[in-house]
Amino acid sequence: HSASCYRKPYTPHKPCKRFVFFYHDKLYMGKNSNLSNATSVAAANQTLLGNSQMGMLVIFSDPITSDRSLDSPHVAKATGFYFYDTKDTYNAWFAYTIIFNSSEYKGTINIMGADLMGVKTRDLSVVGGTGDFFMTRGIATFETDATEGFDYFRLKMDIKLYECY
Amino acid sequence: HSASCYRKPYTPHKPCKRFVFFYHDKLYMGKNSNLSNATSVAAANQTLLGNSQMGMLVIFSDPITSDRSLDSPHVAKATGFYFYDTKDTYNAWFAYTIIFNSSEYKGTINIMGADLMGVKTRDLSVVGGTGDFFMTRGIATFETDATEGFDYFRLKMDIKLYECY
Amino acid sequence: HSASCYRKPYTPHKPCKRFVFFYHDKLYMGKNSNLSNATSVAAANQTLLGNSQMGMLVIFSDPITSDRSLDSPHVAKATGFYFYDTKDTYNAWFAYTIIFNSSEYKGTINIMGADLMGVKTRDLSVVGGTGDFFMTRGIATFETDATEGFDYFRLKMDIKLYECY
Repeated sequence: HSASCYRKPYTPHKPCKRFVFFYHDKLYMGKNSNLSNATSVAAANQTLLGNSQMGMLVIFSDPITSDRSLDSPHVAKATGFYFYDTKDTYNAWFAYTIIFNSSEYKGTINIMGADLMGVKTRDLSVVGGTGDFFMTRGIATFETDATEGFDYFRLKMDIKLYECY
Repeated sequence: HSASCYRKPYTPHKPCKRFVFFYHDKLYMGKNSNLSNATSVAAANQTLLGNSQMGMLVIFSDPITSDRSLDSPHVAKATGFYFYDTKDTYNAWFAYTIIFNSSEYKGTINIMGADLMGVKTRDLSVVGGTGDFFMTRGIATFETDATEGFDYFRLKMDIKLYECY
Repeated sequence: HSASCYRKPYTPHKPCKRFVFFYHDKLYMGKNSNLSNATSVAAANQTLLGNSQMGMLVIFSDPITSDRSLDSPHVAKATGFYFYDTKDTYNAWFAYTIIFNSSEYKGTINIMGADLMGVKTRDLSVVGGTGDFFMTRGIATFETDATEGFDYFRLKMDIKLYECY
């Protein structure tokens, strides 16, 4: 039978679906340096404000792997952008889409939020999804996994979906 | 009576409200070329990475019409931005707001997601709404309807709302 | 007992949580002018299209205070970006995160939408939240509170959450 009712509260530690994978960002460093394997590029460069690359806006189409290694299976792709947004310390802000196109999953997950780089784990919002992730919502927890110079960093992304249809 | 209960699953083919209309993007091509009728402009130009205008970021305030023709009634306005985000093929990423200000509807619908331009129809997320679309959520399906040179393209936008209040 | 049921409709004037505070944007004006107290910076400058700074994209890490004065207690921080998106009149578009890190609240609220600057109050969407605002959704109402030259403006932000867990 149907009744008008209050929403069943979500249980943070009981997502209906969960993925833990690794996001690799390989920034193009200009002058043909790494044209072939770069997967992201600065659309706007850092500004003079502060000393943490504030204002640098990077557009990416980055691989997502099941394990830490860039050579492990690519399970999805992440397209979107991030920018550095703080004067005196490194912080970033992300809005992007995880695109699944495999035998296991077809669809997308849309995510946005603040990447507080100084905090061990920080949460962004899963704000929607399509295909196999139709109308999903949840939390994406970022953790910095590796940083190599200016042109490579890897994030562990723990994606917890609380609305699955 | 009220009960704590599980959410009523959405039925993809039964949105509570649906709009099909056409989005027109007329890009300003510089040097006073089409100043009067352009409705979008590159805030960041394409970069050297790849051959698909990766890094070009366009800000727009584009008309939405009920029919294909730009001369048909303007039913809403779309403001936001898109950028090209892939090296070796054309793909874009959108975040924008559809603004209704007519006798029929007053309010906005907020949308974001990946525009996989090579795919006939591709889905983005309706992540929220205001006014007549208070707290809405749903799916926006894009289909390329026309492309004319570099300065004009038209998308068919099929907006399906699954939360209507 | 549990039943499959329709969602309890939200009541616009009965949010489950509400904040009214003030957002201060202090734009860096270049050439070391206000390096020390600027909290936002243009990552892309205005373009030649129109006369309302269309195309200017600003990245910010701005203070949020409980009262109008910038000297009143800072209750949160807003990080994200806005851009001007219209040729012949001033309109902006925002996507940002409100970050709470106080004894009272820890967590973030993610917001996006059109800032129709000519309208006294205009609504954007709260599209998600984390921490104390886990999975929240709602409406953020903007009202211009002060504008001082090109480098400072203040918005009253009335944040109404309709999903609280």
